[in-house]
Amino acid sequence: MIKDLSALADGPVSVSGWVDTVRDQKKVQFIVLRDESGAAQLVNPAVREPSVDLQTGADDAASADRFAITEAISTLAHGSFITVTGQLKKDERVKLGGLEIKLETLDLVTEALPETPIAADSGLDKRMDWRFLDLRHPKQNLIFRIQTTFLHALRTYWVDNDFIEIQTPKLMASASESRAELFEVEYFEGKAYLAQSPQFYKQMAQPAGFGKVFEIGPAFRADPSFTSRHATEFTSIDSELSWIDDHEDVMRLHEELIVAGFTAVKEKHGAEIVELFDVEVTVPSTPFPRIPLAEAKRIVAERGYEVPRADADLDPEGERRIAAYVAETFEHEFVFLTDYASSIRPFYHMRHANDPSLTNSYDLLFNGTEISTGAQREHRVEVLVEQAKEKGLDPEELGFYLDFFRYGVPPHGGFGMGLARVLMLMLHQASIREVTYLFRGPTRLEP
Amino acid sequence: MIKDLSALADGPVSVSGWVDTVRDQKKVQFIVLRDESGAAQLVNPAVREPSVDLQTGADDAASADRFAITEAISTLAHGSFITVTGQLKKDERVKLGGLEIKLETLDLVTEALPETPIAADSGLDKRMDWRFLDLRHPKQNLIFRIQTTFLHALRTYWVDNDFIEIQTPKLMASASESRAELFEVEYFEGKAYLAQSPQFYKQMAQPAGFGKVFEIGPAFRADPSFTSRHATEFTSIDSELSWIDDHEDVMRLHEELIVAGFTAVKEKHGAEIVELFDVEVTVPSTPFPRIPLAEAKRIVAERGYEVPRADADLDPEGERRIAAYVAETFEHEFVFLTDYASSIRPFYHMRHANDPSLTNSYDLLFNGTEISTGAQREHRVEVLVEQAKEKGLDPEELGFYLDFFRYGVPPHGGFGMGLARVLMLMLHQASIREVTYLFRGPTRLEP
Repeated sequence: MIKDLSALADGPVSVSGWVDTVRDQKKVQFIVLRDESGAAQLVNPAVREPSVDLQTGADDAASADRFAITEAISTLAHGSFITVTGQLKKDERVKLGGLEIKLETLDLVTEALPETPIAADSGLDKRMDWRFLDLRHPKQNLIFRIQTTFLHALRTYWVDNDFIEIQTPKLMASASESRAELFEVEYFEGKAYLAQSPQFYKQMAQPAGFGKVFEIGPAFRADPSFTSRHATEFTSIDSELSWIDDHEDVMRLHEELIVAGFTAVKEKHGAEIVELFDVEVTVPSTPFPRIPLAEAKRIVAERGYEVPRADADLDPEGERRIAAYVAETFEHEFVFLTDYASSIRPFYHMRHANDPSLTNSYDLLFNGTEISTGAQREHRVEVLVEQAKEKGLDPEELGFYLDFFRYGVPPHGGFGMGLARVLMLMLHQASIREVTYLFRGPTRLEP
Repeated sequence: MIKDLSALADGPVSVSGWVDTVRDQKKVQFIVLRDESGAAQLVNPAVREPSVDLQTGADDAASADRFAITEAISTLAHGSFITVTGQLKKDERVKLGGLEIKLETLDLVTEALPETPIAADSGLDKRMDWRFLDLRHPKQNLIFRIQTTFLHALRTYWVDNDFIEIQTPKLMASASESRAELFEVEYFEGKAYLAQSPQFYKQMAQPAGFGKVFEIGPAFRADPSFTSRHATEFTSIDSELSWIDDHEDVMRLHEELIVAGFTAVKEKHGAEIVELFDVEVTVPSTPFPRIPLAEAKRIVAERGYEVPRADADLDPEGERRIAAYVAETFEHEFVFLTDYASSIRPFYHMRHANDPSLTNSYDLLFNGTEISTGAQREHRVEVLVEQAKEKGLDPEELGFYLDFFRYGVPPHGGFGMGLARVLMLMLHQASIREVTYLFRGPTRLEP
């Protein structure tokens, strides 16, 4: 790999990658070769004509080889994958990593079409059409190495703390959240629906006696909106645990996970993130600030913004304003907004014992945008049935879910968090499309 | 947690879990309390009548408490979740972990319905109807702790070796494998299809310059069969890597991953697996035996079994017989069958340079059952187009996939492996249903 070259002694090397750029000068040719680990400069003294032995008139074999390589480089399409051998030489004057490789052989593995369909300044939609070329850029590559590190840090935290990993089914017989955003599947003689979240099935792990569980997997929402924060398919990070006292226990788990993930990312990629994104990743201090939603609305109002919503919730501008307040007051990028009104929470959120208009729930905001919702769940089946009815749901249809609560279940709670939102906000990107391997939206199913 | 009790000194403790069994004797009551970590015995000297102060005629408060607890235990339904406090006492005579807890308080957290719908001897289908109760059994719980350990070991191997984790979309515009087993989704004004494998999109990571990638996620097959090895939704373990010479490089990665997973499982759960499943997990030695498929058929025939198939493949009985041969000859539970005929492999498998009737591919068999298919992929687009046509596919429909190969791509290969099959065979289970959190089949979408 290219990143390993700097540790090698000067001498013969072999390296593979794709052609980033070619500078084809008369006397010397330069190639910038790239792989997933970095880029290096290849240099070839150009031989523009094969020399002929003046005495015999025969071709000079070595010279013919040099001529062939020179010709090959002159016609080399950007993006082609090649394997080369040559002499590695450290040279401080070479800006790219302080080394270059003087070419000896060049093997063209797969030639690219000469015209690349996207350029550095192509629009996001065009870039998504050619995502596999877009992803060759070092910034895009880094995003997915960050994602790998972040997810592995979360899973390592969970495994070290005796959580069980579950894979919940994505094919369901009914809706798991609202029926409004449900994808329908032709399922043999009948219908199935795509899971909008693992909610019901991660809760099932509680009466199953699993104690603490996690899952990172896809979730599906038939959401027709085209905002920078929504997708029809997204990666959901979920955890659920038994024997909590209230949502405070869930928040404590949640912030420890965030710290584990951010610590790992900063350690492994911090310098590169500064270089490519001009962003300094901050590992947040714990505990994160916690503000009850009603108080957050009061603070925002005091600071001159009346949330233009009929319900009890904040709007995106309100979220940005409370985040600004938190940044000023606590120097913190995260804030838990807690105790949402029952009217704007799903039926399965537990309500306050002394005030049923409020729930034991929270949203987690990162740099002013919601990345997660968590809550204590209602585990008393008779209360759950009442709350479902109050939300206009038919307990009959929820039958299999309600059964989970009829044979004993511990108090429990958990959260779901959108991976792409975390990465988007961590790297100050404008859209989750930038940090999603292949975005899915109402009008995008390809590539 | 119950597993932590043995390390505590005798004295006051608090513990939560569900009621496994109650023995309600006249003078003393026993409860076996269980949580995800184990089981412990609770003991309560029964007080069948509250005693009365003989002088004042008033109730004795302490005695009334004891009487209340005794009554509560007498009516305690199996499966109810409780929290108790009491005095921990080590006692070698207690078979269950050599300790018991003398009850002081008992808090009934959630009462179970008195009739449990499944028993220890219920059939598999009935148990699946009540999977959340079925999963309370220590064997089922262990399966998912093993799964957690196995998957974490694979991911740790990948991360330590610079693989990038990808999440490929499960919503697609076309089939990724055969059109025969495809689920169709209503997608706004049009149709989408559920990914049958991440094949196309993990290959996309290769022209994208990701080098080495992995994914563990769901895959969907509209397969109407009801065998013990098939499901309509399953967890697929996938990896793909660049710059291979041939499928040998893929097999080398594959066996290292299997060794990493089995080593971790044996270390963490080996003793428990012997105890609950009567199975000794063996960490396989490397290299695994490799047998070209044609030779495997010859061996099986020499040993008296003619495979009753018109095509070049083995049948399940043939797989069992070659596995028996491998066990005898190499004392190995795994075998790579290599070089499958092009006629029975998908169009994207690379064929032998000197014999296009054979592919650079393999199946991995574990204890006589196929758990995985791997191959070098054809990366030369003109060859790929020809092979697609030969298989009766329309290159037009494969357009977005074929584009991946037009702008430069390294030689690459990889494999897909079914998680449930590995666990089934590791634990000598008869069906993948036993090792799947919630099985999905043609007639099963609930719970």
